[in-house]
Amino acid sequence: MERNILLTIEYDGTNFCGWQRQPGLRTVQGQLEQALTKVCGKEITLNGTSRTDAGVHALGQRASFRGEFGIPTDRIMLAVNNLLCGGMNVRGKCADVCIRDVREMPADFHARFDSKGKKYRYIIRNSGEIDVFARNYCYQVKSPLDLAAMQEAAALIVGTHDFACFQAAGGNPRETTVRTVFSLDVFRREVGDIAIEITGDGFLYNMVRIIAGTLVEVGQGKKRPREISSIITSKERQRAGHTAPPEGLYLVEIYYGELYEREA
Amino acid sequence: MERNILLTIEYDGTNFCGWQRQPGLRTVQGQLEQALTKVCGKEITLNGTSRTDAGVHALGQRASFRGEFGIPTDRIMLAVNNLLCGGMNVRGKCADVCIRDVREMPADFHARFDSKGKKYRYIIRNSGEIDVFARNYCYQVKSPLDLAAMQEAAALIVGTHDFACFQAAGGNPRETTVRTVFSLDVFRREVGDIAIEITGDGFLYNMVRIIAGTLVEVGQGKKRPREISSIITSKERQRAGHTAPPEGLYLVEIYYGELYEREA
Repeated sequence: MERNILLTIEYDGTNFCGWQRQPGLRTVQGQLEQALTKVCGKEITLNGTSRTDAGVHALGQRASFRGEFGIPTDRIMLAVNNLLCGGMNVRGKCADVCIRDVREMPADFHARFDSKGKKYRYIIRNSGEIDVFARNYCYQVKSPLDLAAMQEAAALIVGTHDFACFQAAGGNPRETTVRTVFSLDVFRREVGDIAIEITGDGFLYNMVRIIAGTLVEVGQGKKRPREISSIITSKERQRAGHTAPPEGLYLVEIYYGELYEREA
Repeated sequence: MERNILLTIEYDGTNFCGWQRQPGLRTVQGQLEQALTKVCGKEITLNGTSRTDAGVHALGQRASFRGEFGIPTDRIMLAVNNLLCGGMNVRGKCADVCIRDVREMPADFHARFDSKGKKYRYIIRNSGEIDVFARNYCYQVKSPLDLAAMQEAAALIVGTHDFACFQAAGGNPRETTVRTVFSLDVFRREVGDIAIEITGDGFLYNMVRIIAGTLVEVGQGKKRPREISSIITSKERQRAGHTAPPEGLYLVEIYYGELYEREA
């Protein structure tokens, strides 16, 4: 019987050329498919939920695959992680990608099409101090950011809008650029760090990074918070802020609603 | 007049082939000398205090250089860091090496020969959970470690001994393998992390990593704590434990005693 397996995946995006399989390049999808093919004993193709760019991290990426194979569901995670981590016991160094959860889903489930929403986090290190250890894990902004202004601007993004202004060129063509942002929180984490957390039913190409870049410009006083509404209405990419760099971005969670509960 | 400048340097060792300049390879010394040569307007050669291996990190490496050049001491740090960080303002991503402090020293001062001691830290992530974000910054040990046993063993290393058993082959020849370990503390940091902090008047090649590997084996019950004394007395490398991987190691501080105070 054909099985339909859903994976929850974590990765440090620093040394990957993004999620999507590309010939000759080290990608998350490529590494996972290679390991899964060995573990399942037949060619596996993953349907990923979010095609994250090079340098973007994930705490809860999701991907599904179908097939007939003997390995029990609860053994897949350990087998793949052992393959990926290779000599972890010897070297004490784990891989930069691992599977966090594996579950069997109903035959008609599809990781991407059945997604009801996603949560992303964007981390800004707001400090003039260089931190050589944080460079791959946040966006370092030297000039002081006005948190209250960023929060005021963020509130204007929440809701259902045509977000064409926050879409980069180069993504797959979409039927519509209307999306719903359920929540957009900007808050101070540890000393010096500002986190942006955004949930929505879907995101356009580079949308979270352009929102982060726009909020940084608001925080720097280059844009007024209330400009956001007219930027959205204009639908013009050039009115919005810059695209914040990939290393600050984390794909945190994919929501499936009830679907996730009715496992096979 | 010839000046004698002492730098304090921080780096993430992950993407460096160690400290020491090597033709065609990206090393910390190489990157710094290149930047300093531009900033000072003449060829600069650094005397580093510790030749850290590839993957080893530093919070307080020190290096000195001599020469006649116009740039004021207090401008060197900013100029070099700006060069190293290149487009930080544009990309929001800092370099993996930076200068933390610059000071002018007496003419006869030498960063390595005048060092009175060093402090290293070794970080162990004692957990079966994979952490893809920690892989370059600690030694991941899955099996539970007995902290008390490690502390008992550590106490036997403190003092003046012939540490030939903790010396790897391949280092520069030394006049003697006798060293003094001033302190060696093993303690739990955050949940799951164990830190080893060691200070001494000097360390043999790979000495800290071999001590860390030996303490891990004590923590795993593969060696008894009291074996340490006979391992030291034997002077045999093969009696000690494995060499713990480089990514857990941090050069924390170099001590100069009074010398450091009498700046030029």
